Amino acid sequence: MSVKHAFYAQSGGVTAVINASACAVIETARRYDDKIGKVYAGHNGILGALREELIDTSLESHETIGALLRTPGGAFGSCRYKLKPIGESEAEYRRLIEVFRAHDIGYFFYNGGNDSMDTALKVSQLSEQMGYPLTCIGVPKTIDNDLTVTDNCPGFGSAAKYLAVSTKEASHDIASMCDTSTKVFVMEVMGRNAGWLAAAAGLAARQENDPPHIIVFPEIPLNRERFLQKVKETTEQEGYCVIVASEGARYEDGSFVSASTTVVDSFGHQQLGGVAPALCTTIKQELGYKYHYAVADYLQRSARHIASRVDVEQAYAVGKAAVELAVTGRNAVMSAIIRESNAPYRWSVGEASLDKVANFERKMPMDFITEDSFGITRSCREYLEPLIEGEEYPAYLNGLPRFARLKKVMVEKRLNKPFEL
Amino acid sequence: MSVKHAFYAQSGGVTAVINASACAVIETARRYDDKIGKVYAGHNGILGALREELIDTSLESHETIGALLRTPGGAFGSCRYKLKPIGESEAEYRRLIEVFRAHDIGYFFYNGGNDSMDTALKVSQLSEQMGYPLTCIGVPKTIDNDLTVTDNCPGFGSAAKYLAVSTKEASHDIASMCDTSTKVFVMEVMGRNAGWLAAAAGLAARQENDPPHIIVFPEIPLNRERFLQKVKETTEQEGYCVIVASEGARYEDGSFVSASTTVVDSFGHQQLGGVAPALCTTIKQELGYKYHYAVADYLQRSARHIASRVDVEQAYAVGKAAVELAVTGRNAVMSAIIRESNAPYRWSVGEASLDKVANFERKMPMDFITEDSFGITRSCREYLEPLIEGEEYPAYLNGLPRFARLKKVMVEKRLNKPFEL
Repeated sequence: MSVKHAFYAQSGGVTAVINASACAVIETARRYDDKIGKVYAGHNGILGALREELIDTSLESHETIGALLRTPGGAFGSCRYKLKPIGESEAEYRRLIEVFRAHDIGYFFYNGGNDSMDTALKVSQLSEQMGYPLTCIGVPKTIDNDLTVTDNCPGFGSAAKYLAVSTKEASHDIASMCDTSTKVFVMEVMGRNAGWLAAAAGLAARQENDPPHIIVFPEIPLNRERFLQKVKETTEQEGYCVIVASEGARYEDGSFVSASTTVVDSFGHQQLGGVAPALCTTIKQELGYKYHYAVADYLQRSARHIASRVDVEQAYAVGKAAVELAVTGRNAVMSAIIRESNAPYRWSVGEASLDKVANFERKMPMDFITEDSFGITRSCREYLEPLIEGEEYPAYLNGLPRFARLKKVMVEKRLNKPFEL
Repeated sequence: MSVKHAFYAQSGGVTAVINASACAVIETARRYDDKIGKVYAGHNGILGALREELIDTSLESHETIGALLRTPGGAFGSCRYKLKPIGESEAEYRRLIEVFRAHDIGYFFYNGGNDSMDTALKVSQLSEQMGYPLTCIGVPKTIDNDLTVTDNCPGFGSAAKYLAVSTKEASHDIASMCDTSTKVFVMEVMGRNAGWLAAAAGLAARQENDPPHIIVFPEIPLNRERFLQKVKETTEQEGYCVIVASEGARYEDGSFVSASTTVVDSFGHQQLGGVAPALCTTIKQELGYKYHYAVADYLQRSARHIASRVDVEQAYAVGKAAVELAVTGRNAVMSAIIRESNAPYRWSVGEASLDKVANFERKMPMDFITEDSFGITRSCREYLEPLIEGEEYPAYLNGLPRFARLKKVMVEKRLNKPFEL
């Protein structure tokens, strides 16, 4: 019996370390060449399978695959494409399995978040029904840190470290200028529904009254008056005020903070502004303080240059474990990080049944937020601190990080029809 | 004859490495204790002298002073405060000299940009007239890179490196997602009048068609139609388009790009938007592309975690040289960086007469910008590349950089009157 090949795909928003998981899947599969043939990677994620666009990773050198460990973004391409619910249309799932069958693929490694784990589960179930059983293994990834069962999600730790470091540095900047210049600095961070990243920026504060002084979480409706009062008190006491704000923050009436300002272009077209300019406009209007703001946006999830060593190690470990789970006969599971102790921080990799992960969302515990709603508690800090531990720097050439450049040779198509999305 | 003390002040916008210059001034002065007594640092820059708020750096340990080498921001406080033209009012200059005389200060080290060099020059001239001659030495600093004589300005190289690295990383992110998601990414960078920082972000591109694909310089009026055409062509050819935009960019009619959108809050108050959202709104409107943007703001000038080694070394070297110039009897000069060769990059430190630096502004040479106005030329690259060379990482504790924490003990006041600004 010839060995089956493997299909690996990256899904959803990319991270600074998702390629470390890709590196681990490919390197580990190469070590199990008695059980796994080649690893094909989906060009632009799951769309690569639907379109039969498979990248043959066996044609990439060991050095190039190794360089994935230190390359941000999704090296094979990712996508925001959610398969339709299986009840509505099985066509997409059937197409996937047809492509897998045509290319002798027996393993499906899906590197993503909640939605992806749901897809992996469905593919696993349907493949069985269609008489072409597949081993479907999830590899966790998301800067949102909202997967269940796993203690934390690879990708989050590096974004968290970037935000904590950047907030600390910018705070030193404004602290030195506040006497005659900017009094308020707002750092806008990602997080539509959960405040994990905003909380992480809070790690910049080590002692009482250290910045950031105010964190605006999406979980807690913002009371405009209490917020302004806190900005005023802080600025009067400290000379300046540093605020971290989640993009998804809302006022108590349910409206997005970002919606409180409107951007109007010269043609009169309107669109929502961001949280940071919205808060700054309010502060300027009500308190008169000079402000600056930064919008980290993609920088926070691609900042491989300041990746957390723990995060890189865990991203690699979950990719490696996924392949090991597959070759030992496990199916419909996701590799997961288990926290064994906080101090010293110890962790291991276990597994989670896909049906325990698919479509569930982990919320930030409410006891991670201080009673005044503007800070993080000791238990939050104890949870977060180990995740930003250690530095794992990329190699540099002429002042810039060296990232992997892949050849991306496509496997010849075997199906005679394109797939219409 | 007892030795005179020295006064050191930080001026204007701070940088990731201005404290490296402070470190050098203090450490070097300590080595010349036969000529220089204590180094007093101005609390919040020159205001510290006007208000007689002098920080006694002799009470800080060697370890703390050493830690300044890796601490961003202005450790003693900086300020945006320009002394009045000497013809209008000599009162401020006279006050400075009174304070210096009261504290037996014979050396004035001023760490700043054009304005500061002008102030240092005036103080030098007036002190002579007032019969209390001072040795006035400038220490160059500005992320704007617009001082004359010196080949480049400490602070610029680290901001440049941060922007080049971040642009490269964010480009990897959008490249992997563009098939189904964001097509356009805009990175907003500082630079009201000069495009040095925007040009530096262009270093992220190493090969033809590498991102960033478009740089919007403040020097070149933006033709809206040509810009949109280039965005369209790039997106159609590459699948995505990365744009770097200077905050000071203007359209051909002279209006700021940032003014093409207006932010209106819920009370109807208006204010200017930023360049990035303005360009994105235009692109969305005219081409329909999904976009993301980042505003680096203070992060770019405080990012000590990714400082350029060359920049740190030069910031230290100009501080050290300033003290050496002072003790060898030079006056009314600024230490300056001299480029000796490009490849290999060799530099040394010389001096510039303050009257050759004060109030002059170095523009970016027009042959640094490509003919289509959207890129940097080979000569620009040859100038910039050495400045981002090498990494000089801070020490970390529990995942965060360790920055200096100063005691900041104030010298007892000797004048019996406060100064009214």
